[in-house]
This record gives sequence, structure tokens and C-alpha cells, in this order.
Amino acid sequence: LRRGSCEMVELDTFRMSARTKHDRILQEGLALMSRDGLAGVTLGVLAAQAEMSKSGLFAHFRSKEDVQVELLKHAAQIGARYIVEPSMAADPGLPRLRSLVEHWLGWAPRAGLPGGCPVAAAIFEVDDASGLVREQVLRMESEWRALLTQSTAEAVERGHLHSDLDVEQFVWELSGIYLSHHVAQRFLRAPDADLRARRAFGDLLARSLPSP
Amino acid sequence: LRRGSCEMVELDTFRMSARTKHDRILQEGLALMSRDGLAGVTLGVLAAQAEMSKSGLFAHFRSKEDVQVELLKHAAQIGARYIVEPSMAADPGLPRLRSLVEHWLGWAPRAGLPGGCPVAAAIFEVDDASGLVREQVLRMESEWRALLTQSTAEAVERGHLHSDLDVEQFVWELSGIYLSHHVAQRFLRAPDADLRARRAFGDLLARSLPSP
Repeated sequence: LRRGSCEMVELDTFRMSARTKHDRILQEGLALMSRDGLAGVTLGVLAAQAEMSKSGLFAHFRSKEDVQVELLKHAAQIGARYIVEPSMAADPGLPRLRSLVEHWLGWAPRAGLPGGCPVAAAIFEVDDASGLVREQVLRMESEWRALLTQSTAEAVERGHLHSDLDVEQFVWELSGIYLSHHVAQRFLRAPDADLRARRAFGDLLARSLPSP
Repeated sequence: LRRGSCEMVELDTFRMSARTKHDRILQEGLALMSRDGLAGVTLGVLAAQAEMSKSGLFAHFRSKEDVQVELLKHAAQIGARYIVEPSMAADPGLPRLRSLVEHWLGWAPRAGLPGGCPVAAAIFEVDDASGLVREQVLRMESEWRALLTQSTAEAVERGHLHSDLDVEQFVWELSGIYLSHHVAQRFLRAPDADLRARRAFGDLLARSLPSP
């Protein structure tokens, strides 16, 4: 019995250490991806960042594609924690929609990532590709747009927005504001990026309000 | 004399062939870049596409960075031919601004590129980087935004748009429409990408018209 429980302790320690090492790889990989895109996450660079060998990496992932898919899922989890969870505290309808947008704009640096939104960058990186990585980005972007669409539709249902609002067009234009903000903040490094985005979103809301 | 002119002919033939080979590299490189981004333009792949050796490539370019900068300049030339030149035929003010936007949206596939706009993709690829490639993308994007700003300001001066229009905000939101269209067309492959972009631009214009 004693020997058995000792083995269990060892097994737990091994599991915890594997978990920690796996987390370490995901953390370093997501930082790389945020700064240099999916293409920047080469197995050599990632192994060096996580202070392990390339063959050690393959104990955790089957292939480079597998690494990229796992990093995208990790980005989605962090996005959920920094954007979706705090917004669910707001009332459904316009308050929740506003909160989602406020937490969405510039979420990546607030989450401690050294670069921009890894999903926005991945969209432009894989748009003309095919395969599992593109499918993962598409799944994430579709789920995110579905959440924005649902939140906007709830704002319409509750009378916070115009009853004949084109909800799909609203989300399409909102996505444009997010992308323009990303370019202004990360690429142009414009000090008024937040101001311009808030003005654009405020204007989009103002023209979507119910007729008085 | 005869020998001299013969040498000149040979020199011209050499120059023309070098020019043609250089053009061939730029053409193949821009196609690669349009599909796979700057990171997709590796010297090995580019040499294979242009049917030459890697060392042959270095007779034309000093470094990978030099290849990327030349490809970006080549993209700017093609953009000028497909977007700016035809729009200059339109009257200054709103007609020219409309023409610029019509020729801008989806210009890359119309110019025969196999993927999306290489400049939009490069913006998201180099935003957190530093160096000559980022500086080239920034120069191109700044020139393009200056042209949009000037065309919008001309439309204001001629009374085609509201006299107290925030021209910078107008161009900021227009850039968002372009990016959202790029995502819809290339990434989501949405059949209504053009329709949504036209509706968004039409709406941006409608709320920028002079008060009646």
C-alpha cells in the first residue's frame, strides 16, 4: 500500500510537471504568435523559448499544424476570459453589447500579449490557405461573430436598438471598426486609435437606435 | 565599328533578358506574397517558382529583406495602375473618391493576383516588427491614406460633402470597410462581401453629405 501511494504521488508529480511544461509551451507560443504571426511560430524558435529540445516538443504535439491549432485554442480561452466573461456581468441587450466591444478593442495587450490580436492576424495569414489551421481560425471567428450577432439581436428584441436594424450589416461594420482600430493601434501606432474607434462605434450605435 | 555595334546588341539583349528575368521574379514573388504573405516568400520557393537557382536570385537582390521591399514596391505599382490611374479620369471631389473606393475594393484578384491584397496582409504581418520591410509598408499605407484624405478633403471643398466633416475619421472608417470587405471576401468567402461593403460605404457617404 505504501509503495502504491508513493507511486501515485510520483505519477501526480509527473502529470503536474507535464501540465506545467505544456502550459509553458502554450504561453511562449502565444507570445510568439501575437508578435510574429503563425509563421513566426517555428518549432526551433518555440523549443528555444520554452527551454526544451525540438524532440521534447514532439512529446506534446504531433506536428507544427497541431501546435498552431492548440495555440489558436489557447488564444480563444484567453479571449473568453478577457472579453466574454466580464461582459456576461452586464445586462443582456445594449449594456452587454457595449461591454463586449469595450473589452474586445485592444484585448491582446491587456491580456499581457506582446503583440496584437493573434486571431485578426491569423485571419489575414490563412485567408487564401486550406487545411486544419484555417478551419480552426474560421471556427473561432464564426463563433465570435455569432456571439456579436446574438448580442445585437438581443438589443433589438429588448427595444434598445431599432426594430428593423440589419443585424448582419451591423456586425459586419463593427468588425471593420475592430480591424481599423487594430491597424491604428499596432501598425500606425496612432495615439488616437482608441478615440477614433469609440467615435466610430458610438456613431454606429447612434444610427441604430430606435426612432424617437 | 561593326564589332562595337555587335557588342552593343549583345549588351542590349543581356539587359533585356536581365530585365525580363527580374520582372519574372517580381511577378512570381508577388503571386506568392498575395497568397501566403511576406513569410511565404522564402528564397528557396521563389527561386523554384522563377525557375532559377538561389544563387541566381542573389544576382538580382541583396537579401531576403531586399526581395520583400522590392515586392512591396511592385505591389504599389500594380495598385497604382489598377486603382489610382483609372480614378484620375473622374472629376475631382466625390466622383473621384467614389471611383477610388470602387477600384480599391477587391483590386488584387482583378489585377490577376491569386490571393488577397498583399498590403493589407503585410500590415497585420509586420505590425509588431521593426526594420526596412515595416518601414516600406508604412510608407505605402501612409501615401495611400494621404491620397484618400486629399480626395475626401477635395469633396468637402467642392461642397460635395459636409463642410464640417471630420475627414480623418471618414478615412479611418473607410479603411475599416476595406478591411472588413477583405475578410469577408478572402477569409469568410462570403458571397455578399461586395454588397455589404457597398452598403457600408453608401451609408458612410449618406451621413457625410451636406445638410439639405
